[in-house]
Amino acid sequence: AMEKSYTSMFLLLVAISCALAKDVGKKEAKETTAKPKLPQTLSRGWGDQLIWTQTYEEALFRSKHSNKPLMIIHHLDECPHSQALKKAFAEHKDIQKLAEKFILLNLVYETTDKNLSPDGQYVPRILFIDPSLTVRADITGRYSNRLYAYEPSDISLLYSNMQKALKLMKTEL
Amino acid sequence: AMEKSYTSMFLLLVAISCALAKDVGKKEAKETTAKPKLPQTLSRGWGDQLIWTQTYEEALFRSKHSNKPLMIIHHLDECPHSQALKKAFAEHKDIQKLAEKFILLNLVYETTDKNLSPDGQYVPRILFIDPSLTVRADITGRYSNRLYAYEPSDISLLYSNMQKALKLMKTEL
Repeated sequence: AMEKSYTSMFLLLVAISCALAKDVGKKEAKETTAKPKLPQTLSRGWGDQLIWTQTYEEALFRSKHSNKPLMIIHHLDECPHSQALKKAFAEHKDIQKLAEKFILLNLVYETTDKNLSPDGQYVPRILFIDPSLTVRADITGRYSNRLYAYEPSDISLLYSNMQKALKLMKTEL
Repeated sequence: AMEKSYTSMFLLLVAISCALAKDVGKKEAKETTAKPKLPQTLSRGWGDQLIWTQTYEEALFRSKHSNKPLMIIHHLDECPHSQALKKAFAEHKDIQKLAEKFILLNLVYETTDKNLSPDGQYVPRILFIDPSLTVRADITGRYSNRLYAYEPSDISLLYSNMQKALKLMKTEL
């Protein structure tokens, strides 16, 4: 009974996230000839009032030196699941407030670090990393086959995972 | 006589660029608690109308797939030489126009790729990379001890180096 209830806690993901299609990048590359209306921002709509780091190297440096956990959001403009999660994330006041306690990075291109794709390179995918520079593989969403994916309806779970990332850090350091 | 004139072409750099001090990053990390007035931009003042890539991985991908050379500017907000070069770069209309033919990346944190620091990690430092993903070690500034450094007074040389990067690519491909 215990085992059954445990497994039923994890839902099987059907189509809440997008795979990385090779054509996506190509399409984007072609679009570089069009001029943007406004300068591109580091927030990309995930929270314009928050401070976002530019690169993974910068994020790791800042996490280590500020002793804040790092939150990395992998997403794509062409992925409706990413867009829906972004909207929920940006409109959630408690998340926006709590996000100030993190070093923040959102990426549309994967890094070369395999530690950031423990179960694949799908989007949206949110990972927490300790200031000791360890990926928190234990902070996951609801889906057994894509552990770090979240739907907009999982936004409260994401919030509690952010609290968990802050609490675990304090306990373990 | 030939050798003498050759060596005199290269000036010895005295203090036109900034070394990377460890304290610089720490200072920046502390400043993340202050809120910015506006969302941070990818251009960082090097040309708000241009399209800037966010990360090195993105820049390499776009260069390869768009067949445009990549121009990487390493700089620091705390470095007056970087700031002076940025002003000259942003105000130079021909450079801003020609820059559209490049994939552009400006970085305040170093990548882990040693190919991007052939003679050290000083700033400002500008490197050109071919769509074949080869660093153009032959496109340099005027200073023998910091080959990829430029002063504001070297802005015309930088412009001609940009032309060279475009021309060499066409010739060799």
